[in-house]
Amino acid sequence: MCFLNKYDDAALRLSEFYGGKVEMCIKVPIRSLEDFSIWYTPGVAGVCRAISKDKNASFRLTNRWNTIVVATDGSRVLGLGNIGPEASLPVMEGKSLIFKYLGGVDAFPLPVNASSPDHFISIIKAIEPAIGGVNLEDISSPECFYIQEKLSEIMEVPVWHDDQLGTASVVLAALINALKILDKRRDAVKIVLLGAGASNIATANLLIKYGFEAGRMILIDSKGALYSERRDIEMLRQNHRWKYELALKTNKDKIDGGLEEALKDADVLIAASRPGPGVLTKDQIKLMGDEPIVFSLANPIPEIWPWEAKEAGAAIVATGRSDFPNQVNNSLVFPAVFRGALDVKAVKITPQSMIAAAVELARFAEEKGLSRDYILPTMEEWEAYPRVAAAVSETISKQGYARISLTYYEELEQAAKIIKRARDIHKILVSHNIISPLPED
Amino acid sequence: MCFLNKYDDAALRLSEFYGGKVEMCIKVPIRSLEDFSIWYTPGVAGVCRAISKDKNASFRLTNRWNTIVVATDGSRVLGLGNIGPEASLPVMEGKSLIFKYLGGVDAFPLPVNASSPDHFISIIKAIEPAIGGVNLEDISSPECFYIQEKLSEIMEVPVWHDDQLGTASVVLAALINALKILDKRRDAVKIVLLGAGASNIATANLLIKYGFEAGRMILIDSKGALYSERRDIEMLRQNHRWKYELALKTNKDKIDGGLEEALKDADVLIAASRPGPGVLTKDQIKLMGDEPIVFSLANPIPEIWPWEAKEAGAAIVATGRSDFPNQVNNSLVFPAVFRGALDVKAVKITPQSMIAAAVELARFAEEKGLSRDYILPTMEEWEAYPRVAAAVSETISKQGYARISLTYYEELEQAAKIIKRARDIHKILVSHNIISPLPED
Repeated sequence: MCFLNKYDDAALRLSEFYGGKVEMCIKVPIRSLEDFSIWYTPGVAGVCRAISKDKNASFRLTNRWNTIVVATDGSRVLGLGNIGPEASLPVMEGKSLIFKYLGGVDAFPLPVNASSPDHFISIIKAIEPAIGGVNLEDISSPECFYIQEKLSEIMEVPVWHDDQLGTASVVLAALINALKILDKRRDAVKIVLLGAGASNIATANLLIKYGFEAGRMILIDSKGALYSERRDIEMLRQNHRWKYELALKTNKDKIDGGLEEALKDADVLIAASRPGPGVLTKDQIKLMGDEPIVFSLANPIPEIWPWEAKEAGAAIVATGRSDFPNQVNNSLVFPAVFRGALDVKAVKITPQSMIAAAVELARFAEEKGLSRDYILPTMEEWEAYPRVAAAVSETISKQGYARISLTYYEELEQAAKIIKRARDIHKILVSHNIISPLPED
Repeated sequence: MCFLNKYDDAALRLSEFYGGKVEMCIKVPIRSLEDFSIWYTPGVAGVCRAISKDKNASFRLTNRWNTIVVATDGSRVLGLGNIGPEASLPVMEGKSLIFKYLGGVDAFPLPVNASSPDHFISIIKAIEPAIGGVNLEDISSPECFYIQEKLSEIMEVPVWHDDQLGTASVVLAALINALKILDKRRDAVKIVLLGAGASNIATANLLIKYGFEAGRMILIDSKGALYSERRDIEMLRQNHRWKYELALKTNKDKIDGGLEEALKDADVLIAASRPGPGVLTKDQIKLMGDEPIVFSLANPIPEIWPWEAKEAGAAIVATGRSDFPNQVNNSLVFPAVFRGALDVKAVKITPQSMIAAAVELARFAEEKGLSRDYILPTMEEWEAYPRVAAAVSETISKQGYARISLTYYEELEQAAKIIKRARDIHKILVSHNIISPLPED
């Protein structure tokens, strides 16, 4: 706890010192104020006219091509719950910072005071002309599924809910490599998912799309193992279509009961439930099959400490934390996925492109040399980002959801350039003391 | 026309070359990716908690204190009409550039696809948690009045419609100095306003608030001089409350007819109608009183060329153009007004603070030495901006609409620092070739 309070205090003090984390910058020359005649009236009229003839020209003639919003209704912020849009702004700003630093993406932090999911949808849809994509964040479940689905349907730019899709993608990458190391086959493993919130529901769906057998997966929510005949199935059908659909597909053996019944002989446990330690026990891990894989992803403290999981026999352990090996971290995915999607001016980010991102991320780590303590790149390995972006661009292009198609190698080069530029800007502003050093404690 | 096409072509070519005009930047140090623990999880939770206890802390702990949106529905873009939100984006981006360069304000370009004025209002209101102010732009009349009034009423951050309020403020500043030079008294002059759109209606209202006699003003719209018994008065009452209210207050002599009837013996003509030349004639100017003042503000070409107005006897002429003396330019006002309003974390921008801004701007020019060809500072005289900001901060503070009060001198110093920083960033990025030089033609 002392460890956490240290960051809390620093964050509070430094957020005030710097007055926020992101700002707007000008990206064109202004040799004299006469250049306003180019960037503003009268010259700008020519640009307006071009776009009024072809709306897609807005992706070419403005910064729309690189602009997204990081939008939330503040209904489920971090582990803090429904603290409202104002209080969510620091998280949205932090995400914006990461988007720029790791992906070169211009992400405007947008907490929204919405009266309902449909109101939220109407707001985000309405600002479509300003943006090339939407990153949804920290929205409570199951509303987040409805919002993401509906917006994806009605918008012609990608709509990504990072708590779902970012997590699902990086979990898939981690799992691909963990199975490779242990020589387990995707169509033979039994997977238990503890927690049926935004991330595990999206993870289950992506794993199924990738080729894991749905019938051999078991999702556990607060009422136990999901399956097609669970007592509350009719209620789920009415109130939580996403959980309901997985209840029909997964757990073909209809195992009834709780985590312990489900874990028997399981190869993989993906826990995304609530902060530990002690949410998972060593005895529970011991119920699993041979050389089990344990992803314990709750933040800030995993459901079980990694050393405990290992002591209980886990062959490979991953957590959400940077201070243990195998950090399963959305930041490995979302900046690169958006980089790739924006560079082809994508209409949507498809599941196939998410799988391509995960496969590329896994391959990157494999090329570096896999081990039980290295199943994913770390955030520091920044060559991973252009590669993931390239895989996304290529897949979206091939699927026909790109406004401008790019090959893998075209995007590899472009993404590297854009991301390097973003870091260069930061470095230069630091070196000129525009970004001042941290104040003395 | 050749002159205009030159800018149009350059704007089109260069907007594509640079891919837009503004982008997001990071404003905090990132010594290593470990600093994400401060700027993002887990540390950010401390910042969120602080704001969830006190929403106003969001103005201190995030960049909200310096963030506004430049919002439009695209219903009246420049002189191009209702070209829609996508096609308005280049203008919003240009405004954002000017906001940063002249005022140090972070302004996110936000064209909105709204189905009605109320839908637009609902969207802007909903994003209030993200912003410290709203700059409305290029919205058709009379909807713009309704939208600005309603949003001002329901939001706790300033809502400014620049086509109205920016123009009104700078016209007032120009008029104060023009009258000073010609030794005319504000309570004795007869003022004709040609055009009754957003800017002239706001100008009339601000002039009245400042102390010009409403009864001695005449507004001319497409149907002629407004007055309380004009044939369409009942229709105006129902459809255009803002014009109706001015019809009751102004033109106490009930002069009926058109521009020529109204101009007889007028001291001041403020034309904001449609692009000339030839919309105003020399013969019309000759109808005016002794040493008349002519502001011919249509863009890109004034209603009458300034030399023609002079030949017809105008003592002082102003236009909207930078290539003639006395440019009446909103850019002299909006960056500074927002600078001042944001720095006191204002709840609103009051008419009194707009008057204070105009008076300060007029005083600045006076100190430099007034002449018939110098009634306003130019945009290059950047010491004017912190002074106008200071006048605004001080007035809002005194009126009790500031979340944090500042004196004139406190804000003078702070505004100068913030604006200088914005320019320094630009200069540095240019010098490092992050902003590359203009390409060869």
